[in-house]
Amino acid sequence: MDRPNFDLSEKERMGLIRLLLANLGQYYNGTDKLKVSRQANREEVRSLVLSNDFENPLDFKHSLSNVLKGLTEYGLHTPHPRYFGLFNPRTSFASILADVVTAVFNPQLAMWSHAPYAVELEYQLVQQFGRKFGYSQDVGGTFCTGGAEANLTAMVMALNHAFPDYGKSGIQGIKQPPLLYCSRETHHSILKAARVCGLGSNAIVPIDTDDRYRIDLELLKSRLESDIASGMAPFMIIGTAGTTGYGAIDDLEGLSAIAGKFGIWFHVDAAFGGALKFSAKQEKYLRGMNNGDSITFDLHKWLSVPMGASLFLTSRPELQGRTFSARTEYMPKDSKIAHGSFPDPYVNSIQWSRRFIGLKIYMALSFHGWKALEEQVDHHLELAEHLRERLLATGWIIKNHTVLPIVLFSHSYFDEDGAFARQLCDEIVHSGTFWISVYPVQGVNALRACITNYASSKEDVEALVKLMNIYVEKYMGNRPAKKSVGQQGSI
Amino acid sequence: MDRPNFDLSEKERMGLIRLLLANLGQYYNGTDKLKVSRQANREEVRSLVLSNDFENPLDFKHSLSNVLKGLTEYGLHTPHPRYFGLFNPRTSFASILADVVTAVFNPQLAMWSHAPYAVELEYQLVQQFGRKFGYSQDVGGTFCTGGAEANLTAMVMALNHAFPDYGKSGIQGIKQPPLLYCSRETHHSILKAARVCGLGSNAIVPIDTDDRYRIDLELLKSRLESDIASGMAPFMIIGTAGTTGYGAIDDLEGLSAIAGKFGIWFHVDAAFGGALKFSAKQEKYLRGMNNGDSITFDLHKWLSVPMGASLFLTSRPELQGRTFSARTEYMPKDSKIAHGSFPDPYVNSIQWSRRFIGLKIYMALSFHGWKALEEQVDHHLELAEHLRERLLATGWIIKNHTVLPIVLFSHSYFDEDGAFARQLCDEIVHSGTFWISVYPVQGVNALRACITNYASSKEDVEALVKLMNIYVEKYMGNRPAKKSVGQQGSI
Repeated sequence: MDRPNFDLSEKERMGLIRLLLANLGQYYNGTDKLKVSRQANREEVRSLVLSNDFENPLDFKHSLSNVLKGLTEYGLHTPHPRYFGLFNPRTSFASILADVVTAVFNPQLAMWSHAPYAVELEYQLVQQFGRKFGYSQDVGGTFCTGGAEANLTAMVMALNHAFPDYGKSGIQGIKQPPLLYCSRETHHSILKAARVCGLGSNAIVPIDTDDRYRIDLELLKSRLESDIASGMAPFMIIGTAGTTGYGAIDDLEGLSAIAGKFGIWFHVDAAFGGALKFSAKQEKYLRGMNNGDSITFDLHKWLSVPMGASLFLTSRPELQGRTFSARTEYMPKDSKIAHGSFPDPYVNSIQWSRRFIGLKIYMALSFHGWKALEEQVDHHLELAEHLRERLLATGWIIKNHTVLPIVLFSHSYFDEDGAFARQLCDEIVHSGTFWISVYPVQGVNALRACITNYASSKEDVEALVKLMNIYVEKYMGNRPAKKSVGQQGSI
Repeated sequence: MDRPNFDLSEKERMGLIRLLLANLGQYYNGTDKLKVSRQANREEVRSLVLSNDFENPLDFKHSLSNVLKGLTEYGLHTPHPRYFGLFNPRTSFASILADVVTAVFNPQLAMWSHAPYAVELEYQLVQQFGRKFGYSQDVGGTFCTGGAEANLTAMVMALNHAFPDYGKSGIQGIKQPPLLYCSRETHHSILKAARVCGLGSNAIVPIDTDDRYRIDLELLKSRLESDIASGMAPFMIIGTAGTTGYGAIDDLEGLSAIAGKFGIWFHVDAAFGGALKFSAKQEKYLRGMNNGDSITFDLHKWLSVPMGASLFLTSRPELQGRTFSARTEYMPKDSKIAHGSFPDPYVNSIQWSRRFIGLKIYMALSFHGWKALEEQVDHHLELAEHLRERLLATGWIIKNHTVLPIVLFSHSYFDEDGAFARQLCDEIVHSGTFWISVYPVQGVNALRACITNYASSKEDVEALVKLMNIYVEKYMGNRPAKKSVGQQGSI
């Protein structure tokens, strides 16, 4: 009986590993020597993808080389220290090793009995992160593949909390229209979640923000009162700790007090900003986060692990099983009893069998400890502060107010409609020197630099400021002709 | 400004890589020398997990060694050729390399412009798998983290198809009660999905099956008719190609005809069985799959790639964007125009930024081609057939009827309630020689062996039959005393 050998021979394996290590080593060591981004032509990319022909495979080394070429030559290098963009970090070596281990052992995280070490490890991480984030006793939670899944998990739990029959009779079983409240600056994964879980976008009540893009508590309160008076069923308030564009952090203490007063679920989307907890000096901005019912925190945003690694945490573990458990013939009925105080992962999450996500952060913490995370976060806060100071000192205007490492900046010389900011951004991105983006503040585009790469340094910040001033000099009174440009610089 | 160096030095990296390669090489080469499973004591596991102290980190090598110890010494080895269990494969070397590459480059799959090569590669894979599965023209789809997400994606699309206002007004905007139909043997991720998307479990109409656990078409038709007559709104039929326990494949052609007649969405959950498409001889059992609106296919089940890698395919790509797109200030507005004929991934899926999932299967196909997948699937079908023959020849009874490599078997000597099957299974699992499980057929436990590991051979099958017959001999007329046993053997 012939069968393919997907193991390859040891000699073939070692040859490929050497090739991979040489290439990845060069990339990892020399990321800062590359252009941050390159314009990609779709036909070129497509033809490289299709050059690995599944009918007539190339030899192993060529196949691997093609993939490395594709990822090196096209598009953005998010691991580059001058990628000041979205929350895509350079990944730590420890977390890369973790993904290798996971791919080889391939444990299946549905049941404790099937993967005792992996499931136990994730459980202990949930407890430790829960305590770091201020939950005082029982911590529930699960690893998710991204913040979108974690936010959806929170929404489904909030529905089950407010409407105990939700699991059975769904939203048609709810007599009044259910409503959830968040700021206008909330991440759009909330919109997706509301659509997926059958609420529809009409169930979202977006509340206006103050001049620092934080949800307005007075407006929220009066809206809640009037909605209740008119027969609606508010069931959830979502606070954001670190909006994507501006870096705003809602007043979580104020929000939790309102949620408490009205007796509704309080969720904190701290996908990005949650890492502030690791800064002794600045964690005060997250005050109130621990009063809530649930938290979204993306490890892959600011903690330097590969995507996707999100944590959903909840102070109501008992509700988690009730929301997600699904009994079936082919799963052990008494896993909770057999393994002590916690049920198997598949009864606690939207997913069923899934990847071992937790190892990435476990190995990073094992190697470097909590202390290194603290140092990293403080390092980024200092870099952002330095960037603000240097920009201000050279005639720029800072357009946002946040402690987070997101800096929105503009120049008196800019168009009022921000069209020049857009052009400048595109020019910089196309040159490959930096990746920055634009974000509108009060409707006018500002430039945006966000620092979440542990390899970014003061020199990188200085170089950005210098470059920006060269451009200002270049165009002072001599604005470039408007031209059709791509969208590479948008965030 | 001090900052932690998460890259480590090149010397440290190479030392750790050598340690990792030595250990993983030994594991990968010698998986078949290990016990398939070992009983794990929770306290022991917990103390190993907690021995990596994040306040006082161990040195790098000890940290890594602890993790390797935990995964090697506790629990199941799903990559073992004698793991005849759930659909957890041994991972191909090509797909392991892919996960390494992904972890280092860490591309972000929200937008084409951010990761042109990665997004294009996934797009081309969706097209190629779509065509393999018989979709004739435009193929839509997305990579998901698991079958649960893919099935949820299908359900949300079906709701948007039947009720165009679903995205806005949600389920409360639907006047009649929406219903979906599937067999009683459907995977419980359907139950989870129905709860998550606000339908509630009451919206699921489970249809009885025939003696081979396939959905009864006549019952389905008459139930549809009576539900419509009584004012309900049927919107989706789900067929299963490969139930988890029994391996049943619904009559997909019959189901698609019924769905067509009633004008409702037809989804095929082919998470496991979809790979039959790669067997020229047996793909006939999937006839009708391509008539449907959507398909779930898990690459990590039978195609030897690490978890989680699921494909959602749809013949209605235009509906995908309408269902999942979420406009926001910080995403380019004209990505569709800028990059040709397909929109960015984040507008097509439940997820937002996510991991580069597609590379695992792309590299496996680049190395081995479609042909190797065909050979592998046929190899497993032959092994299962061989197992059936050998069991029948030595006095066993085969309890299921399927072409898939799932064999349910029993013995005249067994208890009618299957208690002895349970005990025998536990004894075998605890011995570490094989991992098999039990599944009830018509209420009586049978033993279950499922073969999805490319390294499993005829010798492994022979050894299982031999062992089973030794146990029968051992206990013939001398049944072991009933004792309290764990649940390791359940699937």
